Amino acid sequence: MSTEKPLQADLLIHAKWILPVVPAGTVLEDHAVAIRDRKIVAITASKDTQSSISATASIHLNQHALIPGLVNVHGHSAMSLLRGIADDIPLKQWLEQAVWPIENKFVSAEFVRQGANLAIAEMISSGTTCFADMYFFPDEVARAALDANIRVQLASPVLDFPTVWAQDAEEYIYKATELHDNYRNSELVHTAFGPHAPYTVSDQPLMKISTLAEELDVPIHMHVHETAQEVEEAVQTDGRRPLQRLAELGLLSPRLICVHATQLLDTEIELLAAHGASVAHCPESNLKLASGLCQVAKLLDAGVNVALGTDGCASNNDLDMFSEMRCAALLAKIVAADASALPASQALELATINAARALGLDAVIGSLETGKYADITAVNLDRLNTMPLYNPVSQLVYAAQASQVSHVWCGGRLIFEEGELKTMDRGSIRKSVMAWQQKIEQAR
Amino acid sequence: MSTEKPLQADLLIHAKWILPVVPAGTVLEDHAVAIRDRKIVAITASKDTQSSISATASIHLNQHALIPGLVNVHGHSAMSLLRGIADDIPLKQWLEQAVWPIENKFVSAEFVRQGANLAIAEMISSGTTCFADMYFFPDEVARAALDANIRVQLASPVLDFPTVWAQDAEEYIYKATELHDNYRNSELVHTAFGPHAPYTVSDQPLMKISTLAEELDVPIHMHVHETAQEVEEAVQTDGRRPLQRLAELGLLSPRLICVHATQLLDTEIELLAAHGASVAHCPESNLKLASGLCQVAKLLDAGVNVALGTDGCASNNDLDMFSEMRCAALLAKIVAADASALPASQALELATINAARALGLDAVIGSLETGKYADITAVNLDRLNTMPLYNPVSQLVYAAQASQVSHVWCGGRLIFEEGELKTMDRGSIRKSVMAWQQKIEQAR
Repeated sequence: MSTEKPLQADLLIHAKWILPVVPAGTVLEDHAVAIRDRKIVAITASKDTQSSISATASIHLNQHALIPGLVNVHGHSAMSLLRGIADDIPLKQWLEQAVWPIENKFVSAEFVRQGANLAIAEMISSGTTCFADMYFFPDEVARAALDANIRVQLASPVLDFPTVWAQDAEEYIYKATELHDNYRNSELVHTAFGPHAPYTVSDQPLMKISTLAEELDVPIHMHVHETAQEVEEAVQTDGRRPLQRLAELGLLSPRLICVHATQLLDTEIELLAAHGASVAHCPESNLKLASGLCQVAKLLDAGVNVALGTDGCASNNDLDMFSEMRCAALLAKIVAADASALPASQALELATINAARALGLDAVIGSLETGKYADITAVNLDRLNTMPLYNPVSQLVYAAQASQVSHVWCGGRLIFEEGELKTMDRGSIRKSVMAWQQKIEQAR
Repeated sequence: MSTEKPLQADLLIHAKWILPVVPAGTVLEDHAVAIRDRKIVAITASKDTQSSISATASIHLNQHALIPGLVNVHGHSAMSLLRGIADDIPLKQWLEQAVWPIENKFVSAEFVRQGANLAIAEMISSGTTCFADMYFFPDEVARAALDANIRVQLASPVLDFPTVWAQDAEEYIYKATELHDNYRNSELVHTAFGPHAPYTVSDQPLMKISTLAEELDVPIHMHVHETAQEVEEAVQTDGRRPLQRLAELGLLSPRLICVHATQLLDTEIELLAAHGASVAHCPESNLKLASGLCQVAKLLDAGVNVALGTDGCASNNDLDMFSEMRCAALLAKIVAADASALPASQALELATINAARALGLDAVIGSLETGKYADITAVNLDRLNTMPLYNPVSQLVYAAQASQVSHVWCGGRLIFEEGELKTMDRGSIRKSVMAWQQKIEQAR
């Protein structure tokens, strides 16, 4: 029995299992997480809490695993309104004949706000507490995230050509810096530069972004080597593979998040490792669009930080990080021709600490550690599909459904509990989604 | 208004969408299925039912899709008790160091019965109404299936070597024919021969099985070309690839279900097509054990019947046919390097009519058609992850979770409703599973 003064806490969450992710592979049984002022202040054996912690409230989750809130490293939240609108067709046709015409017709501040609401509601319900988002009207996504109390990093889009959001690269970049200024002191809203891809952004804006990203200390979030075709076309027109061009422009650094990266030479893997760049792996999207296979085990072995994302709903078709973890773990094995590649505990790292690292937020989220924000997801493992239980990490990655998420806290605030969104109104989301569906269907 | 006498029905299920699977690609909106004496007697527009159908009971599923009950073409149900016991290791090590030692120690009639109960409960909860099963003590699985009112085809195992179930090939085959005799008149329980694999069953028993299968009119269910290693070893020891040997032994016919088939030459694909053999595709298992990639689109193009299975829980780790359909559809695209390969509606065929065809049961199940058994699964699509809805098949395959299954009927009998098993006791299943978990953990 300790004679020290008990630690004060707002909330004490007791759980059958806690998987803090850091230190790697740790499984704590019958432990509790203590939260005060939005942060984790202690993780300790449940039996010791009575003497050591004085909590205002407590909750007992006797069949559950606590994991860090999942971090979805790449998506386009508003595109949730286009879920399933065009399946089973190649990327080029999907973009040019399906997605872009609809976007040109419908994307607006309202579309983005309501699409983001749908995406955020789905993400919270499936245990995600932080997401990176690349889309037009990022200020709308910021407001939606703040209202819902979920963490976001907005990769403000940059393109050479005009869209409803900006006229030219200069204006896109201006809006990105303006967004950054507006949220520089926010705990929940972070920003990044989101130059769309090497084939849509020219050298001048990329160099400017490189300089500004360093000044503002934010990531550069970019689709890189998604398909073989884009790499070949670059070689034909520019004489270089896109990554080589980015390297020569000085963009390779720990700030760079290369989304997809399904086409990498061994020398390019070394290049990414040497510069500390991250890869955002979106396996379901890569498969669905037949884009290519990311060499996850090889990247990890080389020391590259690989993080997990769902991509947008139009190419996935959901924002379920559980099915994404499973897909990543399964796929990595066949790609590496090694059944021991990307084991379950490492797949969970891709969706938590590695994703936080890619976003530059690993000092504050991505694991359950004292001092970090209390971004926590509870998963009820007392289900037919997750029994018996020899290993909770295995159940989470290979057997659990996202619907087993029972509680979600973001910054210590309960935002989801037993099927109920605590900060959002499901009915009004549903209503606005139905209205968009009708409008979009009529226009097809 | 019809002046004919109304059709009598026990139950009328109205649904927002009906996907009968046959005719291919059909989506019926606001239709109803009428059931009498375990079978479907009509499918008609809901608005016409008042005049044409007189039903004892009716149910309205206004946000739901009705699909044929899913047919899981390959598994080892009792192995559900070993879910997650050994992950992230190669097939050989997985079998020799993890699975076989535990099986040798624990497999018994009781183990099989209680393992099958767990598997059946999970399958029913996730919309499966028929499964093929290859494991020892198949008579126990038969009894479990009858009690739960689920359809099963028992691939009675045959091996050259002794196990707890039989001493030699002769005894295995005798037990398979005995099982067939016991259930020859059952509507729910069907049988097949389950010679484990070319490398575990020698020529004599295979020829005997071939003859008996034809006499008894039942399938031959066999692991074939699961890994490159087994094919290479056969070439070294026998001078032939296993499929060539099976062909020469006369086993290739519409009765043959080749499980996995990840290693196929183009000539072998032609051979399977020419003989009308089926392939049981288990994508999650193939990925998890890094066994290889089944060329699904190529097989289908060649006219081979490809059906979908989960494999056992020890290599998957669940019996969720929704995640399996999604995995199959996604994976087929990258294997074919074609985003239009295995579209959603075809993935649903693999899990329904094609699976029924492989089992020789397509005259009675596998689609929602008048005259077939009323094996029906209802999926509630009014969830955040399945809205908006432009295409119900797309939502089912690419976005739905198995937990959205709301109702399951097998032979017209309601066996699952809104989370509740109607023919099984979840509490007693849980209790027996916990007991096995404890025993197995203590022995490790």
